[in-house]
Amino acid sequence: MPASEFSLIDRYFAAHGLHRADVALGIGDDCALLVPHPGQQLVVTMDTLVANVHFFANADPEGLGHKALAVNLSDLAAMGATPAWATLALTLPRADEDWLERFCRGLFALADRYQVQLVGGDTTHGPVTTITIQAHGFVPPGLALRRDGAQPGDSIYITGTPGDAGLALAAAFGKANIAADDHAYIQGRLDRPEPRLAQGVALRGIASAAVDTSDGLAQDLGHILERSRVGARVEVDRLPLSPALIASLDRDAAIITALAGGDDYELCFAVPLERAGQLEGMAADWECRCTHIGVITAEPGLQLVRADGSAFRLERSGYDHFG
Amino acid sequence: MPASEFSLIDRYFAAHGLHRADVALGIGDDCALLVPHPGQQLVVTMDTLVANVHFFANADPEGLGHKALAVNLSDLAAMGATPAWATLALTLPRADEDWLERFCRGLFALADRYQVQLVGGDTTHGPVTTITIQAHGFVPPGLALRRDGAQPGDSIYITGTPGDAGLALAAAFGKANIAADDHAYIQGRLDRPEPRLAQGVALRGIASAAVDTSDGLAQDLGHILERSRVGARVEVDRLPLSPALIASLDRDAAIITALAGGDDYELCFAVPLERAGQLEGMAADWECRCTHIGVITAEPGLQLVRADGSAFRLERSGYDHFG
Repeated sequence: MPASEFSLIDRYFAAHGLHRADVALGIGDDCALLVPHPGQQLVVTMDTLVANVHFFANADPEGLGHKALAVNLSDLAAMGATPAWATLALTLPRADEDWLERFCRGLFALADRYQVQLVGGDTTHGPVTTITIQAHGFVPPGLALRRDGAQPGDSIYITGTPGDAGLALAAAFGKANIAADDHAYIQGRLDRPEPRLAQGVALRGIASAAVDTSDGLAQDLGHILERSRVGARVEVDRLPLSPALIASLDRDAAIITALAGGDDYELCFAVPLERAGQLEGMAADWECRCTHIGVITAEPGLQLVRADGSAFRLERSGYDHFG
Repeated sequence: MPASEFSLIDRYFAAHGLHRADVALGIGDDCALLVPHPGQQLVVTMDTLVANVHFFANADPEGLGHKALAVNLSDLAAMGATPAWATLALTLPRADEDWLERFCRGLFALADRYQVQLVGGDTTHGPVTTITIQAHGFVPPGLALRRDGAQPGDSIYITGTPGDAGLALAAAFGKANIAADDHAYIQGRLDRPEPRLAQGVALRGIASAAVDTSDGLAQDLGHILERSRVGARVEVDRLPLSPALIASLDRDAAIITALAGGDDYELCFAVPLERAGQLEGMAADWECRCTHIGVITAEPGLQLVRADGSAFRLERSGYDHFG
């Protein structure tokens, strides 16, 4: 049964329990009133997911609620920020309360885990489900992980095992087969990416540049190279491939998926040599892997090399919406 | 010719000239880095416009760029905030550079006028043009114009001439005829709403409650009544109707349009009697009209009365997306 826009908002979004001390006024007025953290920079990012473009229209709403927030928290992680608040613009073809309830369950489970409060937004009618979230966080001045600080000689690292989400996408389009035992793991990596927030904060003062791999490792690393005006040499045989990825694809296809498959939401970052020991000491305690995959070079461009020094050829570096 | 997502973003959004001192890092990284104003509260609002729901798919893109930002600045005005930054999530069926250029012209003309910098966002492909903007501003603690502060006896005011945008909508759907001389004025009121930012700031410390009339005066005033747990008596013959509205509709229909037509983006606010003189003195210098239309009552509900004291009947109070 359709409910009115306003009762929907009240019921599903405003009623949620978490209330941060830095929120003076949350959902329910023309605007939210927020109390910035003294002496810190405000870090904001906004990402949109569109049905049939970024997710299947029949996707599990709970996973979607998780993912819509996770992709934004991943951007905060890539800046080294501590998350605080989120806003949500939700366009829906109809007021489906079952869908909303499950969407909220996924969204708020992740939000609560990182103490993120939903402070505002807009719910509108439209023909295509479209989810835009803005996440807000804080970082001390000078400590944000930007894209423009990498220097030749810095070591390049990646968290987790890139390519898993790309494999799940390939399988969804009938272009790969996943062993039954690995299916839940691979699908979870696509549907429930884990924002690397603790890793991002730990990298303050350590990493010289960082990015999250939403569009594919090669393309996102390319953003660091472009902004930092440097190049990179990545040793593709060092890429940390998951057992599921290795079992599902031949080695070259697995490497290509790790380099060019999107939707991973891992952190790719550069660390000056003198801080590499400190990084590797810290990373030994992380819940996710952290793997040294290459080096920043003065020569521009991304070189992909095998263990024997031969070039590895990659046709496509990542996802482009209008390409 | 389709261009890549990233070159589109770079060309149309990042290249724009305005650079505020409180933006440490704008478009081009995983997040923007912003410097909050010391001792002030951050005020945020987010509104979405969807093609064929909030605007006609063939609408003038320049007007749309203006309006998408204006509706958000209007929410800041309704809180008494000074605007600072905006983010934009833009979903487009195709990378139409002519459309983008005109959209940006409208957006940035308004942004520049109020010194608002576009600091981030997301451009995605999708079947339906969908525009979500978040606006950010500042207000000193305790001075925000909330919805929950109205008290019985407070006077109720409205800026401008409500109903003009509703008349334009009615005409677009063939339900009203506008005299040729009035057409440009009425259409401009729908397409190019002027956020009442100067008025909102002036109302700090004066108004006890405020709201902007995006969904219709009666419905939006209803939000003040609900949050403040009060009622109101509005004298419908005091409503400031524009000459164009009066010329186009019979008197009852004009009043109904002023009360229930959406998309006006005027400020409706309450002022305690002891500050009414101060308000009316200030408002004499405003560019827009400011009209006393009624009074807050202890008895709940919205009473609409004519000059002779008889009740005015309104079937529908405003716009509801899922109603």
